[in-house]
Amino acid sequence: MKIALAQLNYHIGNFESNVRKIKDAITRAKEQNADLVIFAELAVCGYPPRDFLEFEDFIKKCSESIDEIARECVGIAAVIGAPTTNPNEKGKPLYNAAYFLTNGKVESVHHKSLLPNYDVFDEYRYFEPAGSISCIELSGTKIAVTICEDLWTYGNEKLYSSSPMEELIKENPDLIVNLSASPFDYRHMEDRSATFSNCARQFNLPLIFVNHVGAQTELIFDGGSFAIDSGGKMIAQLKMFDEDFKIIDLDNLTAETSQLQHAKIELIHDALVLGIRDYFTKSGLKKAILGLSGGIDSAVTLALTASALGKENVTALLLPSKFSSDHSVADAEKLCHTLDCPFEIISIEKINETFEKTLKPYFKDLPPDIAEENVQARIRAVLLMGFANKFGHILLNTSNKSEKAVGYGTMYGDMAGGLSILGDVYKTEVFELAEYINRNGEIIPQNTIDKPPSAELRPDQKDVDSLPEYDILDKILFEYIENRNGPKELVEMGFSKELVDRVLKLVNTSEFKRFQAPPILRISPKAFGMGRRMPIVGKYLS
Amino acid sequence: MKIALAQLNYHIGNFESNVRKIKDAITRAKEQNADLVIFAELAVCGYPPRDFLEFEDFIKKCSESIDEIARECVGIAAVIGAPTTNPNEKGKPLYNAAYFLTNGKVESVHHKSLLPNYDVFDEYRYFEPAGSISCIELSGTKIAVTICEDLWTYGNEKLYSSSPMEELIKENPDLIVNLSASPFDYRHMEDRSATFSNCARQFNLPLIFVNHVGAQTELIFDGGSFAIDSGGKMIAQLKMFDEDFKIIDLDNLTAETSQLQHAKIELIHDALVLGIRDYFTKSGLKKAILGLSGGIDSAVTLALTASALGKENVTALLLPSKFSSDHSVADAEKLCHTLDCPFEIISIEKINETFEKTLKPYFKDLPPDIAEENVQARIRAVLLMGFANKFGHILLNTSNKSEKAVGYGTMYGDMAGGLSILGDVYKTEVFELAEYINRNGEIIPQNTIDKPPSAELRPDQKDVDSLPEYDILDKILFEYIENRNGPKELVEMGFSKELVDRVLKLVNTSEFKRFQAPPILRISPKAFGMGRRMPIVGKYLS
Repeated sequence: MKIALAQLNYHIGNFESNVRKIKDAITRAKEQNADLVIFAELAVCGYPPRDFLEFEDFIKKCSESIDEIARECVGIAAVIGAPTTNPNEKGKPLYNAAYFLTNGKVESVHHKSLLPNYDVFDEYRYFEPAGSISCIELSGTKIAVTICEDLWTYGNEKLYSSSPMEELIKENPDLIVNLSASPFDYRHMEDRSATFSNCARQFNLPLIFVNHVGAQTELIFDGGSFAIDSGGKMIAQLKMFDEDFKIIDLDNLTAETSQLQHAKIELIHDALVLGIRDYFTKSGLKKAILGLSGGIDSAVTLALTASALGKENVTALLLPSKFSSDHSVADAEKLCHTLDCPFEIISIEKINETFEKTLKPYFKDLPPDIAEENVQARIRAVLLMGFANKFGHILLNTSNKSEKAVGYGTMYGDMAGGLSILGDVYKTEVFELAEYINRNGEIIPQNTIDKPPSAELRPDQKDVDSLPEYDILDKILFEYIENRNGPKELVEMGFSKELVDRVLKLVNTSEFKRFQAPPILRISPKAFGMGRRMPIVGKYLS
Repeated sequence: MKIALAQLNYHIGNFESNVRKIKDAITRAKEQNADLVIFAELAVCGYPPRDFLEFEDFIKKCSESIDEIARECVGIAAVIGAPTTNPNEKGKPLYNAAYFLTNGKVESVHHKSLLPNYDVFDEYRYFEPAGSISCIELSGTKIAVTICEDLWTYGNEKLYSSSPMEELIKENPDLIVNLSASPFDYRHMEDRSATFSNCARQFNLPLIFVNHVGAQTELIFDGGSFAIDSGGKMIAQLKMFDEDFKIIDLDNLTAETSQLQHAKIELIHDALVLGIRDYFTKSGLKKAILGLSGGIDSAVTLALTASALGKENVTALLLPSKFSSDHSVADAEKLCHTLDCPFEIISIEKINETFEKTLKPYFKDLPPDIAEENVQARIRAVLLMGFANKFGHILLNTSNKSEKAVGYGTMYGDMAGGLSILGDVYKTEVFELAEYINRNGEIIPQNTIDKPPSAELRPDQKDVDSLPEYDILDKILFEYIENRNGPKELVEMGFSKELVDRVLKLVNTSEFKRFQAPPILRISPKAFGMGRRMPIVGKYLS
């Protein structure tokens, strides 16, 4: 039996585009004499559809799309993900389902059993878990169809007390298939291959995993669909970060390729480029703008965006003040010349003076403080948004994860933007990204990498005046945010109690700032945003 | 048996304050010879604790607090909500539990069976549903202890296929108790009394419901705890929107009061005042600032805030431009005088000119458009945030729900603020609020109520230039947002297809703006924010 793996970039709610891509893949699979083509979880509507699922019209469009796709399935079968209505009187109104399409119609519908509801997942908000489950049969081959989380009990998950494979194995299937919408983080590909290999070995069955590819705002789907033999060995792997299509022969499972290996920073780089590109493509917009300070965050953001959208589609504004050092403008200009992207230099000094004059009667002789510093950052945002509104750009946010964590940023100032590129990348990882971008020659100016980070909002300001050194800070943040370690565990790791208390308090009391931050491209196992939900006026470690 | 209902205002993660209040209520109940005192769901840590629940240290603090409270329970028993660890190897790590405390120790722990995971609720993210459940017994009285959602199958909910009362009734209890964290919306008190009366009648048992009171950022808990007799009749009701304490005698259940009746707009008014007050109190801050335009939204926001915080704690900035009409400043000034709150008048004209000059070389002779309009709104935000940063105010956001729905507002301009007061109040309801505020005499100037709404960002601009009339718009929005009606249903209701398509497209394409909006005080059954989760770059009805 020849099985096609169709790894496609879907767009949430864009049924026309999704159905067209799916039908094209079916045609291609037929042309190559495949017997069966496998698509991803909720392929028809895109993932995650979120509260669109609460609209009857949306569910009806899913079901009409399935009917249209089924009509193409003549001389070939398909398994494809879509929501389906729960016909029972009780329980949540939908199932997350895999449709088995053959002979031009829906042959059977298979429901997801295990519904992830942690981190970025909200599936229990919409879906009822499967009641009964069974295999599908095609030309004498029995296939255990599972959907994403259904197989994750073979990883480290202890969240569930049952496993759907324990039911399905009773029917003696010949193959396990898994339809997924498994979002990227820099270690998730490893988790996936370990989990699915473990499962294949345990049941002594080959396993086919088909994933989404493409970004849906925060969530980046990295693709990397694969087939594993019954010994748990990878025998075929599809591209990461791009659409792909591959046919495997179930009767002749031999390794085509060795498993793809990628360094963490390369994965992050490629994920961010895809995340930027898809945000613009799926918004129907082309052009980006950003403030280029001469510092490393905006430099890396610009380089990534030039890769994603083309140099001509990203405009840099250099917006110096009297506190900007000479090298800031020079470093920023150098980068624009290297990348050959459009840029303008606009001093904010006059505007800042007018604000100072206007505020003087009220601020009187109070010493300058954060208020005056923030005015500068906000003037820059007004200018950037002015350009964005006038010329149809989207403003890119350049804040990194370390800053966002401790609230080191100005709301409606440098925290503004339609999309945060580096909001899930710690400062120390931003440096690694810069080195990676420079791997074949200097793109990010070396001086931008070497100089001490500064917000340049007052004379001789340095980040370390307000924050611990980033190599220490990032370690504490990682343990607190990614690993959910509390104050006691952090002190046991060797960080001083004073430092731990200070950092945790900064994180917990800046929740109100992050609440209004732009969506953040997620590249880690725990990003700010939908995957981390904290009270705003809580009083805990604060 | 005498039972005390303790309705308290908890603060998320503030164990010291929560435990002190709880112990005080136990002392008071003892002094009044109560046998048992009932507290709310997750009282010890506040509700919703969200991802704080993922920290061992947080759970440990909950358990230490329970031990401390238990030691007070000598000569009296208590039932109180707290998270508890799931000791089993599989399943989610916690239960949402009711602790039964007596004789100075934890006598038993009772788990919540039905975990809400819709709208603002995420309980399945953290908690395992109860395995087995049983009643508690105190001095020969058997009590069926349930937690919030556990009883909502007796309302309209068909989400669940089982009901914990069907198990508990087998033990022949004498009383049903329900510990809740049931957030306010303007019709929820009615839902609650109908649901719980229905339940009491069905089992022919008296029922005691104890709720949270107080706001936790977006969520406002209205209290209104009550006791119902076995015929479903209300026999005691605690205050709405305030802490309260009442003892009922289970052996002598006679109606103390007739059921409290409140008009919708009175409920919304009181809820918003509590929401504002608690946001400030729980943030440890006192002073608010807002931009007062002379329009109705900022006028109502100011009046509500003066009620919540005291007139001296809210500062109004009047920030006219050349497009501001004379009556705008006059109406705004009049309101400040009536309320006797501090205000300043600062023209934005000079600053706007400086921005225009700065942008001129780039905007060239392009006709003025939304870009120039937004600059004005953003200048106002920079000035307001400048004051806020300098003097320790929180900026209040004054946008209403209709504007937020259709994206009629400027990001980092009038959409800025730490808390949105009217973001869940449609424009037509803002008018009702103004009339309610003026019920005993004019506070909001009549001209502010009478004049046609305008953003005043270009000459003679009116909201109706860009939007349908608010009485039509709000009806469509309500059907789409609150009632989840789609395009087909809306047209069937009699709205024109063109108008429906236009409004739904406006709503769906402004998701990116709402994503960065401040937290919104929730007063309706479907507010923007945590209770409505939509894709940002979806392509559906857009």
